[in-house]
Amino acid sequence: MSDLGARQLAALSELACLVADGTATRRSQLAQVTGLSRAAVAQRVDLLVARGLLVETETVATERGRPPLTLRLAADALICAVDLGATHVRAALTTLDGAPLAETIREIDINDGPQRTLTGVHELTGELLAEAGRAPRHLCAFSIGVPGPVEAETGTVIRPPIMQGWDGYRIPDFFADRYDATVLVDNDVNMMAFGEYSHRRHLRHLLYIKVGTGIGCGIISNGVLHRGASGAAGDIGHIPLHGHEDVLCHCGNTGCVEAVASGAAIARALREAGLPAAGGRDVVRMVYEGNPVARRQVRLAGQQIGEVLASLVSFHNPDAIVLGGVIAQLHEDLLADIRGVIYRRALPLATRTLAIETSALGERAGVEGAARMAARHLLSTEGIERLLMQPVR
Amino acid sequence: MSDLGARQLAALSELACLVADGTATRRSQLAQVTGLSRAAVAQRVDLLVARGLLVETETVATERGRPPLTLRLAADALICAVDLGATHVRAALTTLDGAPLAETIREIDINDGPQRTLTGVHELTGELLAEAGRAPRHLCAFSIGVPGPVEAETGTVIRPPIMQGWDGYRIPDFFADRYDATVLVDNDVNMMAFGEYSHRRHLRHLLYIKVGTGIGCGIISNGVLHRGASGAAGDIGHIPLHGHEDVLCHCGNTGCVEAVASGAAIARALREAGLPAAGGRDVVRMVYEGNPVARRQVRLAGQQIGEVLASLVSFHNPDAIVLGGVIAQLHEDLLADIRGVIYRRALPLATRTLAIETSALGERAGVEGAARMAARHLLSTEGIERLLMQPVR
Repeated sequence: MSDLGARQLAALSELACLVADGTATRRSQLAQVTGLSRAAVAQRVDLLVARGLLVETETVATERGRPPLTLRLAADALICAVDLGATHVRAALTTLDGAPLAETIREIDINDGPQRTLTGVHELTGELLAEAGRAPRHLCAFSIGVPGPVEAETGTVIRPPIMQGWDGYRIPDFFADRYDATVLVDNDVNMMAFGEYSHRRHLRHLLYIKVGTGIGCGIISNGVLHRGASGAAGDIGHIPLHGHEDVLCHCGNTGCVEAVASGAAIARALREAGLPAAGGRDVVRMVYEGNPVARRQVRLAGQQIGEVLASLVSFHNPDAIVLGGVIAQLHEDLLADIRGVIYRRALPLATRTLAIETSALGERAGVEGAARMAARHLLSTEGIERLLMQPVR
Repeated sequence: MSDLGARQLAALSELACLVADGTATRRSQLAQVTGLSRAAVAQRVDLLVARGLLVETETVATERGRPPLTLRLAADALICAVDLGATHVRAALTTLDGAPLAETIREIDINDGPQRTLTGVHELTGELLAEAGRAPRHLCAFSIGVPGPVEAETGTVIRPPIMQGWDGYRIPDFFADRYDATVLVDNDVNMMAFGEYSHRRHLRHLLYIKVGTGIGCGIISNGVLHRGASGAAGDIGHIPLHGHEDVLCHCGNTGCVEAVASGAAIARALREAGLPAAGGRDVVRMVYEGNPVARRQVRLAGQQIGEVLASLVSFHNPDAIVLGGVIAQLHEDLLADIRGVIYRRALPLATRTLAIETSALGERAGVEGAARMAARHLLSTEGIERLLMQPVR
């Protein structure tokens, strides 16, 4: 019985996805493509329309008889995609098919804790809805990237190295009292990786490397986000670089690549050289100004990051490595050294078609990925199951 | 039209898989579970029976009316699973549901090249068929693991570091003249990883590490074998260990973990200490005999392999690491050091549920994985498509 339920949900999900990607937009086409009977298609499409996920409209009238009815995703169903960083929040309101309606960015301090930070997100959502002329009841999903490890099934933050006061906090609970919406939470770098992958659908295996205050990685394997057994996959910042055993990392180990080659580490090296660099943004500015010491430090960081990536290329054999984060703005300086080390150290078979490039989406990668992930989730069996309990209004 | 074809194939594949795993073994159950009409189920099941993949038999007669007909996989359809090593070939004949009919092992030299080696496999297959009382026409798949990189789509060996004379050789061509069977070829370590995974289906992410003459890794991500962009994934033998820059590897780089900590490397270290060790098997024997120098070298190798694995655990966050290969027979000595380094160096979140153990299947992991992979392939849309062109006889 429960297996039957799961298969019915799978059929509903398949129909919704076929409409979403434009493969079939009429009932007759859905019957033809799926092999389901017309009656079975009718029953399922009626349900998806009644629950507000699909709308059916008349297209151009033909001379003979009734005009055909065309199905599409409801434009009323909205996603709020949120990228929480250490010092900023970016939020975007989109439709299910990814069309952006409104977007904004604001400075925050993530260490203010969950209540204050998420209250800010709640206010921002209200502003975006007002700007787009929509109501809270139109929101069917929040999709939130946070700068720390997350148990994706429950949306709980787990032992984050930054994010004071968030350990064990279950983010969906905050929104449950305020909206009737699905809440997805994931690590911010996972969201960014999914965003970059969504723009490169011809690829199957992608590593997104964020070089900002820290260093992290999002992994796409066989077209699927790889979170790992406990949601910790891609946490490459603490892979050791040998020859740097004197550098203490905040994790308690020594020589971690994040402690040696991140934006924060480069800035510290510049301060030790007497230059006024508070963080990664100052590093970027100094390189733009032509400061040779800053440039030298960035190139060294490129070699060190390249060493770690060469091993990961041999292991994972990706189609592409995409570099993001504030330091990746320095692509000319950073990429040359990273590429040099990877091509020298990884196996030829693993690098012969490897693309190594900087982010196409830049600072929007996080919200882009969050919106795409929510859309995919809402059309999945799990999303459809929830929809049957709580229709889109 | 081609999309319609693909969906029909998917429906056939789904029906075959439901019968294979026992979810539905009657036509009425298949209709109920899939939501397909009875007529659609009948048409598809008739096709699968006519092509020889399924058989339909009467079960116990009931008092009222005709006994129900039960579907199952044809016992006539056989798989020949082959594990080619540098110095041995192991071959097993199994049914589609994995039941072993006959199995054998023989010494070879892979450097004799493809013609001589595969002629040996061909002869071995004949012996296995004779032993099981079956004919070549019953073989619907060969599934072969080889000790080198493979382009899995074409079954072509690509730049193998061992396997002299095999570079660019397309293995399925050898069998095409001799059998009407699908030929799957993959790296031996991938086959072993799939074998171990098949025995631990509750896990989603598994790394299989083979420590033999070389060091290699097979990767399961989200329940799927991860081959990477060019089939090179898991080639971890050439990840550098720092502090060993004086050790030259056959790949032309220095300090590769395979050059420092493999069975061949441990044997070389023992020879340098004046002990008569030709390869990994001698190392194992000496440790069993209680030789403290051999034991010391194995423990050192465990620490060095552990260093590489700690980084891979942070990156991939597997549920389990399974160690195989000849050196893994020394589990007490090897595991303690590998575990020690991983728990010390990888992040706590990534190790809190991590199992680190030795192979459950031992030397049978390769043929077990090859057989399972072939069965999965034969029931997939691709396998069904081929079946429609070439029925099982």
